[in-house]
Amino acid sequence: MKKLEHKNCMLSILPVRDTLDVIGGKWKILILISIMEGNHHFREIERSIPNLSTKVLSDQLKDLETNQLISRSVSNGFPVRTAYTLTEHGKTLQKLILEMHNWGVLHRKKIIQ
Amino acid sequence: MKKLEHKNCMLSILPVRDTLDVIGGKWKILILISIMEGNHHFREIERSIPNLSTKVLSDQLKDLETNQLISRSVSNGFPVRTAYTLTEHGKTLQKLILEMHNWGVLHRKKIIQ
Repeated sequence: MKKLEHKNCMLSILPVRDTLDVIGGKWKILILISIMEGNHHFREIERSIPNLSTKVLSDQLKDLETNQLISRSVSNGFPVRTAYTLTEHGKTLQKLILEMHNWGVLHRKKIIQ
Repeated sequence: MKKLEHKNCMLSILPVRDTLDVIGGKWKILILISIMEGNHHFREIERSIPNLSTKVLSDQLKDLETNQLISRSVSNGFPVRTAYTLTEHGKTLQKLILEMHNWGVLHRKKIIQ
């Protein structure tokens, strides 16, 4: 492969860095998977991910909402219930998450060899 | 989608967490892209990624080698030159990196809207 100039290399790196900024870190992808798999309420999501604290979950949900990946709705009933669902934009991450899942399976096989 | 039991949810989450452990964080993917794009020597890789310190690059290269994603070779000439190249296992990440690149482009368009 031809060696790229610094500027061209940055053109490849920037979108990947954007993706890492939005979904990188230890928790965001795991929270998105939990919501995708049918956990919509705060306590459900919290219980589905081991070692995730209430404070961290709360902060991460706000970040995911800011990035338009999930939406938060509040029911009118009593008690009031808040539900988190994936937005259409959030759903565009499914292919990437599947790719991460498949590579994780492959890597574990490779390392165990 | 049917709500999954906690155990089943973990089956989906574990491989994704494995992937994040291996290539997550701020630098590893960027270092892999730099090597994929033709930078094979330490200083070349260092110069191709803004704000990456020598110490961090050195540590991350060791991690990538431990995970069998890159290999390190030392030339016999003088001065001795060390070169980093992607292993066959490292090359299996290309599809995932392309997916991260494409999603980053899509997300930037969405957020600018």
